[in-house]
Amino acid sequence: LAARAERARTLAALRDLPAVTPDGRRVELAVNIGRPEDIAAAEEFGPEGVGLFRTEFLFLDRSRPPGEETQWQAYVAAVRALKGRRLVLRTLDVGADKRLPFIDWPDEMNPALGWRGARLSLERPDLLQTQLRAMLRAAAEGPVSVMFPMVTTLEEVRRLRHAVEEAAASLEREGVAHGRVEVGIMVETPAAALSARALAGAVDFFSIGTNDLTQYTLAVDRTSQQVAALYDPLHPAVLRLILEVGRAAEEAGIWAGVCGELAGEPLATPFLLGAGMAELSMHPRALPEVKRVIRAVRYDEARQLAGELVNLPTGDEVRRRLRSFLAERGVEPET
Amino acid sequence: LAARAERARTLAALRDLPAVTPDGRRVELAVNIGRPEDIAAAEEFGPEGVGLFRTEFLFLDRSRPPGEETQWQAYVAAVRALKGRRLVLRTLDVGADKRLPFIDWPDEMNPALGWRGARLSLERPDLLQTQLRAMLRAAAEGPVSVMFPMVTTLEEVRRLRHAVEEAAASLEREGVAHGRVEVGIMVETPAAALSARALAGAVDFFSIGTNDLTQYTLAVDRTSQQVAALYDPLHPAVLRLILEVGRAAEEAGIWAGVCGELAGEPLATPFLLGAGMAELSMHPRALPEVKRVIRAVRYDEARQLAGELVNLPTGDEVRRRLRSFLAERGVEPET
Ligand SMILES: [Mg+2]
Ligand SMILES: [Mg+2]
Repeated sequence: LAARAERARTLAALRDLPAVTPDGRRVELAVNIGRPEDIAAAEEFGPEGVGLFRTEFLFLDRSRPPGEETQWQAYVAAVRALKGRRLVLRTLDVGADKRLPFIDWPDEMNPALGWRGARLSLERPDLLQTQLRAMLRAAAEGPVSVMFPMVTTLEEVRRLRHAVEEAAASLEREGVAHGRVEVGIMVETPAAALSARALAGAVDFFSIGTNDLTQYTLAVDRTSQQVAALYDPLHPAVLRLILEVGRAAEEAGIWAGVCGELAGEPLATPFLLGAGMAELSMHPRALPEVKRVIRAVRYDEARQLAGELVNLPTGDEVRRRLRSFLAERGVEPET
Repeated sequence: LAARAERARTLAALRDLPAVTPDGRRVELAVNIGRPEDIAAAEEFGPEGVGLFRTEFLFLDRSRPPGEETQWQAYVAAVRALKGRRLVLRTLDVGADKRLPFIDWPDEMNPALGWRGARLSLERPDLLQTQLRAMLRAAAEGPVSVMFPMVTTLEEVRRLRHAVEEAAASLEREGVAHGRVEVGIMVETPAAALSARALAGAVDFFSIGTNDLTQYTLAVDRTSQQVAALYDPLHPAVLRLILEVGRAAEEAGIWAGVCGELAGEPLATPFLLGAGMAELSMHPRALPEVKRVIRAVRYDEARQLAGELVNLPTGDEVRRRLRSFLAERGVEPET
C-alpha cells in the first residue's frame, strides 16, 4: 500500500514533464474521449491533445440525425477546452454493433465485416456533409484533424478527401467562418496497413486502431467467448502491420499514431515508440504509466527492439521480450 | 460461335500437356472436390491431383458424426481414383455459415470471426482424432496430405501436428495399416500469411485460401450486398500477403499453393506463378485456361511482374497491368 501511494505521487509528478526519451525523441501523449466534457476530467493527467474524439454520442438516442449546429457546439466546445492543443475528430463510426434508428440497416451475417464506418458515410453524403461542415467550422477556433474510420482502399480515401473539399467549398460560398483541417484515416483493416505506402500520399496522418486491426488480422471477434483467448494485439503479425505503417509514415513525412487500446498498454510502449509512432492516444488514466516508460527508454534501442519483435514466432515470446527489455531499464509496468 | 468451338478444341488438346512455362517452371494444376466421385468427372480436364478435398459432405445431414470407417471409405476411394497423384484432405471446416446438429454452437455476433475450422477441431479432439485416423489409414494406399483450415498462431500448428502424431501412434499401437502424410495449413487469415516465415518451419506446405484471406484482409463479407463491391482478391494488400507466403515457402524449402477461387482465375495466373506458387487447385472447368496461360508466360517475367503488382495502389491498376501483360503475350483470358 505504501508502495502504491509512492507510485501515485511519482505519477502525479510526471504530469507536467514532457514525454521524451533519454535520447530526445518526443511522443505526443493524447487522450481518447467520448464527449467534450471529458477533456476537463482528463486534465489532471496532462494530455497534449485529443487523439480520438468519438462523435457517436451526438447520434445516439435520437430519432433523427443531429443538425450542423448541434454538432458544431460539441466540436467547438472541445476545441476551446483544448486551448491550442490538437483535436482529432473521428467521423461517425457506426454499423457492426452500433446501430442508429434513422439509418436503414441491412441484415448482415457478419456486421463487423460489413457496412460500417466510412463505408456508410460514403453512401450517406447527407450525414457526412453535415458532420464535415460542423467540423470545419469548429476548426476556425483551433487545430482540428478529421479522421475517417474503416478505410480499405485508396479510392475511398480519395472520395473522402473530396467530401472534405466539398464541405469547405460550400462554407466558402456561404461565407461561413471555417478553418483548414488535417485529413487522416484510422488504420484498422489489414488492407489499410498493408497499403500504407500507397495511402500515405493521400492523407496527412494515420491513426492505428489496434482493436479492429487485431480482430481482422487474427480473424477473432473477442466478444465470442470460444475464441477470445486467441485475441492478441501483441501477435507478431499485428506488430508487423504497425511497424509497416510507422515506416510508411516516416518515408512520406506524415505522422502516425495509435488510438486503440494498445496505446495505453505500458508493456507495448517500447514497441510503439520503436515503430515510429509519434502520438499515442489512450484512456486518460493510462497516460502517466506510458509517459514513465517513454522517459526511461532510448528511442534508438526501441527501434532496434521493434525490428526484433516482429520476427518473433509468438505473442508470448513478444511479451517475454518486452518484459525483460523494460526490466533491464528499471521499469516494471503493472500490467 | 466458330471461335468458341475452336477454343474448345484448343483447350481439349491442352489436357495431356504439362503445365510448364516456356522457361521450364512446372506448376501442379489440381482440382477442388467435395466428394470422391468428383475425381472421375474432373478427369477430362487432366488434373494432376486434388488440392482440396472438402470433407464436410460426410458430416452434413446427420444427427451424429460419421465414424472412422465411413470416413475411411470416402478418403480411400479418392486415393484409389487418383492412382498415385496427390490428395490434399482438409479437416472438418465448419462454423461460420456451416453448422452441424451434433455440435453445440455458441451464439456469435460475427461467426466468420469466431469458432470455426481448426479452432473447433482443437476443442473437439474426439472428432479430430477419428478424422485423422481415417485419413492416415487412407494414406496407406497413396500419397495423402492433411490440411488444417483457419490457423492463426504457431501454437495452434504445434497442437495440430501433435494431434496427427497421436492418431498415428494409436494406429501403430493397434497394428492398423496406415501411411505417412504431409501436414499443412490453409493460409486464410492475414495473421497466418504475415507469420509465414515462422509457420514454414512447422509445416510441410501452405495452401492459400484466397476467399477468406480476402475477406479478412479487407474486412469485407462479400455476402453483404452493401459492401460486396469492396471485395477484391486483386487488392494489392491481398497480393502482398500471397507474395509473402510464396517467398517464405521458397526460403523454407516447402511448397505453397492456392486453393481459393483466385487459383481458377486466368487473369491472376501470371501473378500466382510469379509469387512462387507451385500448385494451383481449382474448379475442374477452370483448369485448361489456367494451363494455357502458364504455357504462355515466362517464369522470370512473372516473378518480376509479381514484385511490381504488389506496389500498385489499387486493384483496378492491378487488373489493368495483368491484362496488358497477358495481351502482350497473346493470351486474352475470357474473364
Ligand atoms: Mg474501429
Ligand atoms: Mg475458409
